[in-house]
Amino acid sequence: MAEWITSRDNGKVKYACKLAQSAAFRTGENAFFAEGLKLCLELEKGCLLKVIFYTQKALEKTPALAELRCEQYLVEEHVAEKLAGVKSPQGVFGVFEKPAGDLEQMKRSGRLLALERVQDPGNVGALVRSAAAFGFGGILLSPGCADPFGPKALRASMGAAGRLPVLTVPHLPDALAQLEKDGVACLAAALYNSRPLSEAAGPWPGGLCVVIGSEGQGLSDEAVHACREAVRIPMTDRVESLNAGAAGSVLLWHFRGEGL
Amino acid sequence: MAEWITSRDNGKVKYACKLAQSAAFRTGENAFFAEGLKLCLELEKGCLLKVIFYTQKALEKTPALAELRCEQYLVEEHVAEKLAGVKSPQGVFGVFEKPAGDLEQMKRSGRLLALERVQDPGNVGALVRSAAAFGFGGILLSPGCADPFGPKALRASMGAAGRLPVLTVPHLPDALAQLEKDGVACLAAALYNSRPLSEAAGPWPGGLCVVIGSEGQGLSDEAVHACREAVRIPMTDRVESLNAGAAGSVLLWHFRGEGL
Repeated sequence: MAEWITSRDNGKVKYACKLAQSAAFRTGENAFFAEGLKLCLELEKGCLLKVIFYTQKALEKTPALAELRCEQYLVEEHVAEKLAGVKSPQGVFGVFEKPAGDLEQMKRSGRLLALERVQDPGNVGALVRSAAAFGFGGILLSPGCADPFGPKALRASMGAAGRLPVLTVPHLPDALAQLEKDGVACLAAALYNSRPLSEAAGPWPGGLCVVIGSEGQGLSDEAVHACREAVRIPMTDRVESLNAGAAGSVLLWHFRGEGL
Repeated sequence: MAEWITSRDNGKVKYACKLAQSAAFRTGENAFFAEGLKLCLELEKGCLLKVIFYTQKALEKTPALAELRCEQYLVEEHVAEKLAGVKSPQGVFGVFEKPAGDLEQMKRSGRLLALERVQDPGNVGALVRSAAAFGFGGILLSPGCADPFGPKALRASMGAAGRLPVLTVPHLPDALAQLEKDGVACLAAALYNSRPLSEAAGPWPGGLCVVIGSEGQGLSDEAVHACREAVRIPMTDRVESLNAGAAGSVLLWHFRGEGL
């Protein structure tokens, strides 16, 4: 039987809220917080669930919640409202361990995505989801990217962040240079001085890494130079650029895994 | 020389705010409101600019604003704040005439996008932008779609809404059936009972129309049945679905115009 939490000042609740609010705290604790029944159940398939909170109403709707192997807490509605990042909460919240990102394992997958200062959590979430959908095996992040384990990015990735190893590297151009040394073809998405997608066709026997830059500025020169080649999505002259999530998804689709 | 507006209760200001807030008012007035220097200049390439408002500071930064052929108003900062939908406004605002959507002209383009109840303005905006980028010549909307000329969708489409004719039809399945009768191949995006994209390759001498449904429910059965065939984006089993803007952009890219 789950323990009741009746106070918004309960230590477990405060800890969960801090995980939701602070990327630095998530890093330090190697943990993250998620809201919503569907999202928590999806994440639980890929990540270790440490704590679950639910309201009486949520438990009645989904009795299986009580069978999840983790710390369990029943929370009163006003406590659920504090935990919730959105209005009219579904009343299910989880604290998960962050999955470990191992570069060697990622490389063996043959397909990586690297993001440089992609700042919008919705874009990061959508890209993580598309990467998982199209057979990519891991994600490298530069400093300054939105955290894929923050609340907005988690909602946008719909749990995909739990299925893919994610690794933040101190200096992305160095990481890309190392990948190239190891035989991984790094392909920079760049509007200028780049080849259209149709001309970028492997084979890349050592695997490939698609590299995408920030919404406003694109990739740094240093990141582009670390890559084997630069590619662009051909467009009509009716637009100047694409939405970052849309452009990234087209690239990930183009470089999708075999069999898709 | 532009006239000064010093009151937030000025009739022109109230009219602009109402255009920003109400899709019904936009329809009735056949006009829309946009905020931001870059967005307004981009829209002005495709739509008739009727009124422009700017702050003294914005005018000093971009003196060319005074040369735009339309009604011109200088607004005080506090008036700009009322007009602005976002914090720290850039101080440039325009009222535009909605471009007319003519179905016959759209059909001649050979490539249409149809949306059924796509409710998120960010998704509608991203899809309009991708459609313009990938050589589509017009957009059909069912009732219940977010208005591409609302503030959020305009920001997401970055002005592309002014470059493509957009037409809201009373009943989308009827419109699709009529397109099929006229020889246009309507292709429904559907996860089930559909062929993978790789098997959907024309030629479609009468043109094609990509049909995309709502974020949660996808397309109605009626819309799918009105279409010649249903297609899906193949995915790994790591995700259940894609972000609507991402999925739509991949479809639009796959069915892109010649020469891209």
